[in-house]
Amino acid sequence: MKGNEPLEYFFNARNIALVGVSNKEGKMGNLFLRRIKKDFHGEIYPVHPTEKKILGLTSYREIAAIPSPIDLVVPLIPQEQLLPLVESCANGQVKFLLAIPSGFGELPRGGKIIEKNLVRLAKERGMRVVGPNSLGMFNCLYGLNASMAPELPQGAPGFSCVTQSGGFGMAVTMYAQNHHMQMAKFCDLGNTSDVEINEILEYFCQDQETRIVGIFLESIPDPKRFITETSLLAKKKPLIFTKIGRTPAGGRASFTHIGLPSVGVEGLDRKIIHAHTGLEMLHIAKGLTWQPLPRGRKVGILTGSGGLGAELTDLCIEHGLKVPKFSKLLQKALRPFLPSYASVTNPIDLTPLWWEFPKIYPPLIHMLLSSPEIDLLIITIIDVATTVEGLMHAVVEAVPNGTQTGDYLLKPIYVYWASPHSTLKNMRILEDGHIPCYQSTLETARVAAAISRYGNNVRTAG
Amino acid sequence: MKGNEPLEYFFNARNIALVGVSNKEGKMGNLFLRRIKKDFHGEIYPVHPTEKKILGLTSYREIAAIPSPIDLVVPLIPQEQLLPLVESCANGQVKFLLAIPSGFGELPRGGKIIEKNLVRLAKERGMRVVGPNSLGMFNCLYGLNASMAPELPQGAPGFSCVTQSGGFGMAVTMYAQNHHMQMAKFCDLGNTSDVEINEILEYFCQDQETRIVGIFLESIPDPKRFITETSLLAKKKPLIFTKIGRTPAGGRASFTHIGLPSVGVEGLDRKIIHAHTGLEMLHIAKGLTWQPLPRGRKVGILTGSGGLGAELTDLCIEHGLKVPKFSKLLQKALRPFLPSYASVTNPIDLTPLWWEFPKIYPPLIHMLLSSPEIDLLIITIIDVATTVEGLMHAVVEAVPNGTQTGDYLLKPIYVYWASPHSTLKNMRILEDGHIPCYQSTLETARVAAAISRYGNNVRTAG
Repeated sequence: MKGNEPLEYFFNARNIALVGVSNKEGKMGNLFLRRIKKDFHGEIYPVHPTEKKILGLTSYREIAAIPSPIDLVVPLIPQEQLLPLVESCANGQVKFLLAIPSGFGELPRGGKIIEKNLVRLAKERGMRVVGPNSLGMFNCLYGLNASMAPELPQGAPGFSCVTQSGGFGMAVTMYAQNHHMQMAKFCDLGNTSDVEINEILEYFCQDQETRIVGIFLESIPDPKRFITETSLLAKKKPLIFTKIGRTPAGGRASFTHIGLPSVGVEGLDRKIIHAHTGLEMLHIAKGLTWQPLPRGRKVGILTGSGGLGAELTDLCIEHGLKVPKFSKLLQKALRPFLPSYASVTNPIDLTPLWWEFPKIYPPLIHMLLSSPEIDLLIITIIDVATTVEGLMHAVVEAVPNGTQTGDYLLKPIYVYWASPHSTLKNMRILEDGHIPCYQSTLETARVAAAISRYGNNVRTAG
Repeated sequence: MKGNEPLEYFFNARNIALVGVSNKEGKMGNLFLRRIKKDFHGEIYPVHPTEKKILGLTSYREIAAIPSPIDLVVPLIPQEQLLPLVESCANGQVKFLLAIPSGFGELPRGGKIIEKNLVRLAKERGMRVVGPNSLGMFNCLYGLNASMAPELPQGAPGFSCVTQSGGFGMAVTMYAQNHHMQMAKFCDLGNTSDVEINEILEYFCQDQETRIVGIFLESIPDPKRFITETSLLAKKKPLIFTKIGRTPAGGRASFTHIGLPSVGVEGLDRKIIHAHTGLEMLHIAKGLTWQPLPRGRKVGILTGSGGLGAELTDLCIEHGLKVPKFSKLLQKALRPFLPSYASVTNPIDLTPLWWEFPKIYPPLIHMLLSSPEIDLLIITIIDVATTVEGLMHAVVEAVPNGTQTGDYLLKPIYVYWASPHSTLKNMRILEDGHIPCYQSTLETARVAAAISRYGNNVRTAG
């Protein structure tokens, strides 16, 4: 049995005791229970001092009254009630406490001691603590939303992430919702009083459902082990890392947030993908989730605007990609699909023939993805073109989706999308077809470059 | 009379001849005429070989048949009809030709000669040419949309911009539409066969309605004069410059787009604000349009998420701003408005007390904008907070709008906004209150840093 196996009881808890729930609509505890009930198929034990039933479920006076060992306790109670709650648990009864409440180590004074007492009391009873000061945890494939986030992302084997920031956790679910991005697991370690990043990484490393890992982290309690764990993980799966507290002021901000010093880490594995912001991590995760890895850094660009095509070209080059001029042979093959004044050298500049795009884009995408002259394709869908719904369906159909065969199958495509708010719904058609869209040329180029660099590091590392 | 005065007849044309319009609904020429008719109060002369009336306006067989001197001719006709059209004009009859059609100098072969002939024929008749291969021009304060862009931005003295990219022009109008940003004037020079960037800059320099200038440019025909004109302009008004074709591949892309070599420029005035992309130019223009200049680089950060506050802090520092720790005095003054576990050192981390935000944000914003410890304020409105409509109204009311007095009047505020697509409408409330919102921490920090650097350069240059 591996040392980290117990985290299986956390992410795949067979049963959950919820403390601080009530029948009163609009209360957080009520909302939380409704959310868990909706998709979670394990046992749920509401705990309430007086109620017999809560939302139809048998309720218990206290945790010790629950006639079963408990995998996970989730308290939705004020800080001062948390320690008494832990004391009320029987020895060995509870495996994990997901301590959502804040008001512990992040307090300017006194909080650290309360937090230490919390962990001590929990340990005495054989209980591990995640948090406190945590947004919570979710496991999308298991229908388990033990977090303050209102919506569980769609579940699929893929992206899992770990953080110490509830705000970032909210950003994750919002991103998943805006882009219909599937996820596996999420955990906010908050003040990281007990269960720490390295244990989560060890778990993610062997977890079959986790195929891409994101780390948004402010503090690393054990940097040496962190280097080992991230290195092991990066050998098996893409690992995207956003380190916050890079500057002294950022470190100070982080300290007041989670009560832990920001520690820099040197000597990380070079296969680790560094994302400058949490949002960029999600952009990269989306690209990795939906598209294959590029086998090189040669970019083909297909654009409806010459100026923005040139801007994308500059940005690609500046971020380490190549935008090669197409061979005469390829240019000749592309020419019949284009108006005479469109350029075919790369970028391919279609000029704004929006109404023709649904007919022009598919054969060009097919030819480019089939050509050995590029390793990845960036296309722009901007302004008027974003209103042409048929274009999105045509693009989705033109991009191999894994059920077709052929060499070109292994080339990724990324879209630079710029639209009025009113046509964002058409972006959904592309993303529901697993074609990732980015709303600035800079992010499009940065994501393509980061993923291409990663592909290169994986190949050269053997 | 100044040498550039004739451009007044271009941007404020008293009358316009439209060639290639028709009564057939759905045709571009029909659409174009409808748009111009909607808001333009000058004379409009449709030109059509057979129709007597078009959309109720008297139509003319040819330009020479129009019984008046003409400020601006706008042809919506195929490339091959453009030269005959110019030849059909009487000598001295037309001041400006806005040559929208493409298929000239940007063609791989032959186009350059046709373009030269176009300019020669026009010159022989005393006519200046803007374009060809142009999206067109608009003057928002004059209700004049002589462009392919479907909507004219709201008009107000403020941002004007010039480009060679129709795609960027479309991005400009889309941005104005998404953010309700007011504008003054726009012009796409396209292949820049005759009227060139320096003339436009000279015009913008003396134009009272133009208070901020944007340049999105691929090629600079006369770099020496460009340095002079931008320097003169930057002395009077904020000038934001995005240079495309920075890399050899970008230059090649640009060449196939407008048929002109990309020329780098060294020795530009240091008051010029450099934007890495066209989108970033618009972000900066919005900040300058709606908010005063900061008088230094000390940032206050007010956030609902500690993690994202720390991320913003890192990004601000990395882009040259400062995030000073607040004095004990200021911390003490802020404390009563916050929960005990919220941090007041800077960033101020409110923790996710969303429902309290409409009460907490206004006094904090007021105190911070009044404090000499900061020069500019960044606040975050993210996830659940974006659904609290009352918060947006409260923030708009809390920010001085120019009708109030006091020292703090001169401090800018910028918002980092992250929401589900469904609550983007609440962002409008802030932006309609002239509080600029940015949808990534990176862009928020980059914009604040660029504007702060500009403010500093203006002050130190005297």
